[in-house]
Amino acid sequence: VEKTDTLSVVRAYHQGWTGKNFETSEKLLASELRVEVPINEYPDRESFGKALEGFGSMTRGVKLLAEFADGDEAMLLYDMEVEHLGMLRVAEHFTVCEGKITRIRQIHDTAALRSSGFAGSASSES
Amino acid sequence: VEKTDTLSVVRAYHQGWTGKNFETSEKLLASELRVEVPINEYPDRESFGKALEGFGSMTRGVKLLAEFADGDEAMLLYDMEVEHLGMLRVAEHFTVCEGKITRIRQIHDTAALRSSGFAGSASSES
Repeated sequence: VEKTDTLSVVRAYHQGWTGKNFETSEKLLASELRVEVPINEYPDRESFGKALEGFGSMTRGVKLLAEFADGDEAMLLYDMEVEHLGMLRVAEHFTVCEGKITRIRQIHDTAALRSSGFAGSASSES
Repeated sequence: VEKTDTLSVVRAYHQGWTGKNFETSEKLLASELRVEVPINEYPDRESFGKALEGFGSMTRGVKLLAEFADGDEAMLLYDMEVEHLGMLRVAEHFTVCEGKITRIRQIHDTAALRSSGFAGSASSES
């Protein structure tokens, strides 16, 4: 796997949903997608895609701070301005296989999200 | 700046404090260190070094999940087991200049930290 291939998939995914082109991003998610996030649970690609549309629609701006790729893994660091929430800094780790994202790990604070009622939405299991 | 140089500095820093060799890590912090963390505030190298010793001493184990470097920047992703807290997933972004770390950005959840009384320690400004 080339580093540039991994990064181009991840960039296309990121540019898709942050530009409200959710279908572009959803097409880059593998059917066996695994999601590791600090709040709520997304057991499959469909539930995560739905959340991406919901949360992405509330995004007022995204500033990419750093991007890295190595083999089939990549990592992004960005600040996003979210409606009803304010600024949220996010680190996102991706694993890519054959042009599709097979695992997404998001790392961010949940304190403001919890106090703003973002926990336990319709997409949550718990 | 070589990618390998940046990563070797960051690895030495990470292995230092996670192995309780705090002096090793503190020596790799530049005097003009800037720190961006989601909880508490560390206006200089000394206050951050003190926090590193305090928090590092409570660390029961660290599992590195991913590492990246590009130019003078690097990023680590790890899970750590912390006394009185449990598991904490951390993404850490570094800028390195002439063998020293000039900026550290930590991204992690603070919900469990806040409820366990980790906010507003002696090292905090606010």
